[in-house]
Amino acid sequence: MIELDEIGLVKKHNEETFILLEDEYWDATLNLDKFSHLIVIWWIDGHDNPESRGTLVVTPKPARGNSSARSGVFACRSPVRPNPIGHSVVALIGIQDEGRRIVIDRIDARDGTPVVDIKPYMPTSDRVDGARVPSWFEDLEPRYYH
Amino acid sequence: MIELDEIGLVKKHNEETFILLEDEYWDATLNLDKFSHLIVIWWIDGHDNPESRGTLVVTPKPARGNSSARSGVFACRSPVRPNPIGHSVVALIGIQDEGRRIVIDRIDARDGTPVVDIKPYMPTSDRVDGARVPSWFEDLEPRYYH
Repeated sequence: MIELDEIGLVKKHNEETFILLEDEYWDATLNLDKFSHLIVIWWIDGHDNPESRGTLVVTPKPARGNSSARSGVFACRSPVRPNPIGHSVVALIGIQDEGRRIVIDRIDARDGTPVVDIKPYMPTSDRVDGARVPSWFEDLEPRYYH
Repeated sequence: MIELDEIGLVKKHNEETFILLEDEYWDATLNLDKFSHLIVIWWIDGHDNPESRGTLVVTPKPARGNSSARSGVFACRSPVRPNPIGHSVVALIGIQDEGRRIVIDRIDARDGTPVVDIKPYMPTSDRVDGARVPSWFEDLEPRYYH
């Protein structure tokens, strides 16, 4: 059995998106402000149920105008999967010691979503040039590159 | 309480590195071969203990010739962290239905490490151009870009 602890929550308030970290983990943010982007690992709690976790094949939402093919959940970013782990690359806006807030630009997780890990984005290991995807994802809008 | 299930294992045999998926999850690989790179989420089982999970500040290993600064574990990729979740971007070499193997180029996880999720690498959301890192990581060797 593998057990995860919640380290904080995604919060969305007044057009600001941030991770509200639990007090006990704040020391782990030392030097986090030296990075421009983070990988946030969160728990898709709305799909932590036997039906979602037992679903292995879905039809992913394709780029506009494309048609999609039924795909395994390991071949798309469906929230429905055996372990509903959310993974988002986000831009770091600021660290607010007061309030234990890590302010980010955006995240595809709802207000109140449990966060389980925060990692710095390391171009050396996380950036891939020219990665290939199937035709139904080819025209999706890029987020952090030009 | 958040509970993860092991979906497979990292295996390293005869100079080949692969994920040995449990039979019951194989259907979830449909169309995975359409991607060139994957994000593998694994469990750093060697650090699933109270001491490692209670460590919040470490001195990360810097690029050669640089000196590092004590950093929070959320500001480096230390295996010692509150939730020992491993995250690796890898190149997909092939899918072998027989044997339930997902062959990859390399991974910073030991033989026998539990795997908990596999996601396709999506340049639109996972690739960042020009991400900033602190000076001690600036000269690290890039893996998948030129």
